[in-house]
Amino acid sequence: MPEVIVYALSGRTREQKRRLMKAITDVVAEHFAVPAAGIVVQIVEADRESKSKGGTAYADMPGPK
Amino acid sequence: MPEVIVYALSGRTREQKRRLMKAITDVVAEHFAVPAAGIVVQIVEADRESKSKGGTAYADMPGPK
Amino acid sequence: MPEVIVYALSGRTREQKRRLMKAITDVVAEHFAVPAAGIVVQIVEADRESKSKGGTAYADMPGPK
Amino acid sequence: MPEVIVYALSGRTREQKRRLMKAITDVVAEHFAVPAAGIVVQIVEADRESKSKGGTAYADMPGPK
Amino acid sequence: MPEVIVYALSGRTREQKRRLMKAITDVVAEHFAVPAAGIVVQIVEADRESKSKGGTAYADMPGPK
Amino acid sequence: MPEVIVYALSGRTREQKRRLMKAITDVVAEHFAVPAAGIVVQIVEADRESKSKGGTAYADMPGPK
Repeated sequence: MPEVIVYALSGRTREQKRRLMKAITDVVAEHFAVPAAGIVVQIVEADRESKSKGGTAYADMPGPK
Repeated sequence: MPEVIVYALSGRTREQKRRLMKAITDVVAEHFAVPAAGIVVQIVEADRESKSKGGTAYADMPGPK
Repeated sequence: MPEVIVYALSGRTREQKRRLMKAITDVVAEHFAVPAAGIVVQIVEADRESKSKGGTAYADMPGPK
Repeated sequence: MPEVIVYALSGRTREQKRRLMKAITDVVAEHFAVPAAGIVVQIVEADRESKSKGGTAYADMPGPK
Repeated sequence: MPEVIVYALSGRTREQKRRLMKAITDVVAEHFAVPAAGIVVQIVEADRESKSKGGTAYADMPGPK
Repeated sequence: MPEVIVYALSGRTREQKRRLMKAITDVVAEHFAVPAAGIVVQIVEADRESKSKGGTAYADMPGPK
């Protein structure tokens, strides 16, 4: 506790995810004054067809697929 | 802002998802009076083994798999 | 099914929420070809101290509180 | 209603998921005094690279992968 | 781990919530073969104006408010 | 994008929440290589009766209420 859910596009590397989850755990432990051991982070990934911003699917946005 | 998470069975087409995310964005912008540009929609899909209604997995329900 | 969770700042009127939930239900039923009767929408509200964009709490942003 | 989201590591069998969703539905119906028919459960799975506890990705923990 | 989020209308008693969270923990431990000690349950409540089914806010449905 | 939801017990100060949301935004921007401006964090709080660990409601655990 707490539990942190990160909603993001799929495609990050294992290392990026590893570092992000460690960093989120550290800042939650620091600022909410709880032991890191109980903090859970889960990254809920979506492909570019299943996520949109401003009404446009990421799959339909210019730039790398 | 706001962020909209849609929990649904997997299997929709790209076009269905595209239209749904656009339509959700439009109605949120309209009814919550916020700019569409900041509205995010993510569809969190589950396969039929990982979702149930009334205690029955969708995989165990009659009808198309 | 599906279930739609809307993460938003608190402060909308009852009427705004009523219309948004109806409109989201309608577009989900239309685009995902499911009966409206089974669609659930829940608005998960946060006060301005508990939500941020770009690293700034909404409570710390200029404009109406 | 209600809707129950279970955030878990992927890798459970179909039978485990089937039983869990039935059991969750039963206890929600019992303790919240609602008809089971309207209760939805969705299991949101993450691979071991996308979930951490105590700042360590499950992929980096000793034990079966 | 796992983490279970229950989206429900507000209004349940402390005792109902206590029993539900215990029961959910027990069935998750049993069926997913994990220690109960690590299982977290959070009930995310909404008032009747902020939740709908079939496009109708619960606040607008007949029956007890 | 991404969007980060933090499920936590209520009771943190405004300053704790402000710092946590800023810190989460910074580490997400750094490790997922995205502009901070688009990152949203929402803290979804539960009172001690509505959250449990190991099957015990936080309201029933010894220690400060």
